[in-house]
Amino acid sequence: MIIIGEKINTSIKAIRPAVENMDREAIQSVARKQAEAGAHYIDVNCGTFPFKEVELLTWLVETVQEATDLPLCIDSPNPEALSAGLKVYKGAKPLINSVTAEKDRFESIFPLVTEYNTSIIALCMDDNGMPEDADQRVKIADWLINRMTKEGVDISDIYIDPMVRPVSTGSHYGIVALDTIRRVMTEFPGVHTTCGLSNISFGLPGRKIINQTFLISAIAAGLDSAILDPLDKRIMSFVYSSELLHDRDEFCMNYLTAYREGRLDV
Amino acid sequence: MIIIGEKINTSIKAIRPAVENMDREAIQSVARKQAEAGAHYIDVNCGTFPFKEVELLTWLVETVQEATDLPLCIDSPNPEALSAGLKVYKGAKPLINSVTAEKDRFESIFPLVTEYNTSIIALCMDDNGMPEDADQRVKIADWLINRMTKEGVDISDIYIDPMVRPVSTGSHYGIVALDTIRRVMTEFPGVHTTCGLSNISFGLPGRKIINQTFLISAIAAGLDSAILDPLDKRIMSFVYSSELLHDRDEFCMNYLTAYREGRLDV
Repeated sequence: MIIIGEKINTSIKAIRPAVENMDREAIQSVARKQAEAGAHYIDVNCGTFPFKEVELLTWLVETVQEATDLPLCIDSPNPEALSAGLKVYKGAKPLINSVTAEKDRFESIFPLVTEYNTSIIALCMDDNGMPEDADQRVKIADWLINRMTKEGVDISDIYIDPMVRPVSTGSHYGIVALDTIRRVMTEFPGVHTTCGLSNISFGLPGRKIINQTFLISAIAAGLDSAILDPLDKRIMSFVYSSELLHDRDEFCMNYLTAYREGRLDV
Repeated sequence: MIIIGEKINTSIKAIRPAVENMDREAIQSVARKQAEAGAHYIDVNCGTFPFKEVELLTWLVETVQEATDLPLCIDSPNPEALSAGLKVYKGAKPLINSVTAEKDRFESIFPLVTEYNTSIIALCMDDNGMPEDADQRVKIADWLINRMTKEGVDISDIYIDPMVRPVSTGSHYGIVALDTIRRVMTEFPGVHTTCGLSNISFGLPGRKIINQTFLISAIAAGLDSAILDPLDKRIMSFVYSSELLHDRDEFCMNYLTAYREGRLDV
């Protein structure tokens, strides 16, 4: 599993003032902790400051890169902010979060992928909005993958996000997300799938249980990346145990090491 | 999900003396608690008393039936004990746990299914032992289902158990079990699949996490029944959240009711 650490996001209560005040120490500490906990990318998002996003995202990219060698996941729907962040970016190939098949968004963001040689998260939505079923999502994924690989992007640099919608707003949205993941992973060998875990449980009590169940079910459907909190030991425990069950952990070594090092919540 | 409550089993420390001393109150209390917690069948097993199994299983069947109207899952590899239990059984169609495709076991146990009109758990093993891969398991399931339906058993009375083996003894055994479940549910419409949760984690630390992950992954693969402890609130929470994610809980009513009644561990 490719873990994208989600904690540096100004929609999170403790992060907002740290970014607003450009508190270097606080942000770097969160970055380092996520790296130690097993993140493969550190997401940076300051979308709750739309009028200062260019400045703050640039600062976040520079600040987090001083703290860790991990690649970043630069997270914004704003091409200007992404571009500013990418300009000061220096490390291993970054991930852009995200493009869609919406005409304007695709045409403004996709050029950054080829210009800066990045990997890219692509959401299954287009100008008709968020599709109701898996068929339409797979069609959009098909268009995105074809379009981007034709322009020279390697399929292994593409992370398809199924666009998870809350089961509280439609009881079919769980299987829509899971079927989309299964079909994308089967029909487009080499591509990655990724998503966040919290949309699925929006509006319901006991959200952690639902999010955990969704992660495990999605890994069973083929999901090979997730945007999550790597400091949540319970969630990381389920990542390790899912890898174990899907024959992606020879001799149970990763699971046993995580257990011995106290990184599992058992 | 069809929940088979596993707690009345003499391999469980607190149950052994209760059965040995024919402690009516103790056994009936465990039966009632499992029924209240959402079990659909109450399993009764006294296999650790091989020399008194006929007598004790008969007593268990009578005793549990006084406490609950739920059907029983009469659990023994011994046809004599099963037969004695079935003779005194009076309630809704019971489940026998279990037959296999081993010649002797099949020929001694299967006649009880037709004689007493029971449902039946059938394990994917034959005289060659426990198969290494999903292919062989599906072949055995095929033989069992064909043989039993030809003799008049309705396919909806058959519960195929994939025969879960520990991932600690072979890192492929997780996907072998999950693939067997998925293929059996796809290739034999109308059949059930069931299994216990604890074999998968044998020999590893943090077994609960692995068992929970296995249950959720197996439900995602199509599992529609499980032999588990319904008094384990965390496991039951994952049953409810899995049903929610797989569109088997209209308007989230079961999940929300369980939450309101304090039956979820969130």
